[in-house]
Amino acid sequence: MDMLSKQELLSRAAARTQTLTNGRLLLYAGANLPSPEAQNAYAPALSAYPAMGPSFAKEQPDTDLVSQLEVAVRSEICALFEAAWAEPRLPSCTIANLAVFHAFSRPGDLLLAPSAAHGGHLSQRRGGTPELAGLVVEDLPFDTQNCQLDAQAAAHQIRQLRPVLVMLGRSVMIKPDDVVPVVEAAREVGARTIFDASHVSGLIAGGTFPNPLSLGVDIMTSSTYKTIPGRPHSLIAGRDLQDGVHLAGFLDRMMLANYDAGKLPAFLVTLQNVRRDGADYARRICLNSQALARELRQLDVTIIAPADDEVFTHQLLVPMDGELAAASVIAKLESVGILVGTCADPGVPGAYALRLGTQFLTAQGLGADDMALVARRLASSLSQAKNKRMKVKRPDSF
Amino acid sequence: MDMLSKQELLSRAAARTQTLTNGRLLLYAGANLPSPEAQNAYAPALSAYPAMGPSFAKEQPDTDLVSQLEVAVRSEICALFEAAWAEPRLPSCTIANLAVFHAFSRPGDLLLAPSAAHGGHLSQRRGGTPELAGLVVEDLPFDTQNCQLDAQAAAHQIRQLRPVLVMLGRSVMIKPDDVVPVVEAAREVGARTIFDASHVSGLIAGGTFPNPLSLGVDIMTSSTYKTIPGRPHSLIAGRDLQDGVHLAGFLDRMMLANYDAGKLPAFLVTLQNVRRDGADYARRICLNSQALARELRQLDVTIIAPADDEVFTHQLLVPMDGELAAASVIAKLESVGILVGTCADPGVPGAYALRLGTQFLTAQGLGADDMALVARRLASSLSQAKNKRMKVKRPDSF
Repeated sequence: MDMLSKQELLSRAAARTQTLTNGRLLLYAGANLPSPEAQNAYAPALSAYPAMGPSFAKEQPDTDLVSQLEVAVRSEICALFEAAWAEPRLPSCTIANLAVFHAFSRPGDLLLAPSAAHGGHLSQRRGGTPELAGLVVEDLPFDTQNCQLDAQAAAHQIRQLRPVLVMLGRSVMIKPDDVVPVVEAAREVGARTIFDASHVSGLIAGGTFPNPLSLGVDIMTSSTYKTIPGRPHSLIAGRDLQDGVHLAGFLDRMMLANYDAGKLPAFLVTLQNVRRDGADYARRICLNSQALARELRQLDVTIIAPADDEVFTHQLLVPMDGELAAASVIAKLESVGILVGTCADPGVPGAYALRLGTQFLTAQGLGADDMALVARRLASSLSQAKNKRMKVKRPDSF
Repeated sequence: MDMLSKQELLSRAAARTQTLTNGRLLLYAGANLPSPEAQNAYAPALSAYPAMGPSFAKEQPDTDLVSQLEVAVRSEICALFEAAWAEPRLPSCTIANLAVFHAFSRPGDLLLAPSAAHGGHLSQRRGGTPELAGLVVEDLPFDTQNCQLDAQAAAHQIRQLRPVLVMLGRSVMIKPDDVVPVVEAAREVGARTIFDASHVSGLIAGGTFPNPLSLGVDIMTSSTYKTIPGRPHSLIAGRDLQDGVHLAGFLDRMMLANYDAGKLPAFLVTLQNVRRDGADYARRICLNSQALARELRQLDVTIIAPADDEVFTHQLLVPMDGELAAASVIAKLESVGILVGTCADPGVPGAYALRLGTQFLTAQGLGADDMALVARRLASSLSQAKNKRMKVKRPDSF
């Protein structure tokens, strides 16, 4: 793209929803759009000045409406995730994870977390956000065969190392982990468990993915624009009311002054939509993933996905041929309007995979029958990308 | 306010701009609204999936439009503040300050910062955000007589204590500080200076408040909804290009995964508006503050404000009678639709003051002539609040 004038940039930005929904095949696994209703509910005047402190005990005058919206959003989150408390004010899950690290540990404490090689996100893992809170981070063990947490080994590791925090969930989750042994071991040693559900929170709310809080996890964090069809933001939810009080107090004292409270009504609408449509949406996402996996296998595309009788998520992986960097394939898919992401191949050290997700196309109304066409387009483009015979040119539509 | 139904909450949120502009006298010093044009420029599809990493070298496909907008916003910030680099991606100035602390210091390093008693914000001061980065914080000296940084004492303190970082700017700034001696001392000992311009960045852009970067400060941080009429967000700008590269690299590695890139076009419009109208707006703000100060003094309201020949900002302070807590006066003013804030009285240890700002009313089109009426309403309500004779009832308009 040539460097555009500022006016042209604004025009393209205004047209971007149209471009993305009609001109691209968006298979990026961490992608979604708020409904127009949610989008229109953004209320700039709620963000005109701060609303600092606890609901109904805020420093600023005339903030009761913000307080009531905070209560309403918290109550929706608690209802969706069977939580005792919720914190809805932080702008991203990375910041939410940082807040949780600070609130529930001290510098020098040990955190066990998924490694980058197995889908650990920079906000979860060694070398990333936890180190900002001074945490010492050790990798959790992983079952590369099943592309899952090695739960028994993790429980053993917890009993041996006695961490203060254990971070579960990853940015690569093609099926659920067995978190119960981990939670039990963590309880024994007095460690808190955190589950970063950014990718699967909409599936949890919709009942197709196990609810970590119901399984005993102490605190769940999530972003809100992946399987939850909202704007970028975060939610935090937990089992123990005292944790919620402690976290909110910490935020008010040290980390949160103003926040963009105008997002609250939009967030409320998104969560209400999830309560109304979330079960159906989650079911359709998983059926689409299953159908896409089946179709790709029939087209001889090697994929990493659950077996047909296992629980699917929105994600599938396509391991990359050793000769081509994943980034190059992604760029070539981009040139024909197919948008996917990349991740470490959790089964092969040092290798990469494409990471696909069905949640965006599902939100656009595509069903299992449509996955045959999606699979054919993808397989054909992948094959062309590998054969390097394709001309690289970005189309306006496909 | 009774607890409202979710539908009623959404209606009130939608009507809030109208309420705030027509039904309240908003004198809170940290308050503003984006123009409708900026508000409408929010582009949700730019936030549909992440755009991680440097502009034009992002991990995700089809992110050139985000990259171009990042470049455009950075160039506007640099133009407005005569900066060599800018970082436009962080959601609030508290998070921006935290990022700067992490990027340019190590745990255990010394930060000199304004104390809470003199207007130091929780994101700047001892007991607040700097301690999340492991900084040891000492209070900067303050000239209570002039309600300004004691610049000579601060320079001396810097030469003695040799800090790694020096944080300038406060949430109470009724006139500019003399930062040059501080910058010189910091240079001598190899300390970086940061100026949190959250309250006065619009006045700096408009040329009525000295530009800290031009005076030698290394890094300026700011929120964007006070004297800059935008949505809540942050900007960071600096003098040394290497600092910008270092900060961006740090963010990409450890603190910033996704961000709400849909705000970029709105931010661009706001900054373009500041470039077009900012000088006039800043001039009108300062004239309104001066007029309001004059009128209040004529009505025998004790205020802390610059002398008539000094440089004004948007802020004025009203020291509180010892018998009444500031919070109670604020609540009583709220009941007649007058919205103000509170702060420590920087001149009297342990005492509080009301903090007023003219930037919101100025944006609504009020001029110096209107300040007589504003002053009379305020003086009359303050007098009633002090006499406790007023009935407390929140009106829909005044």
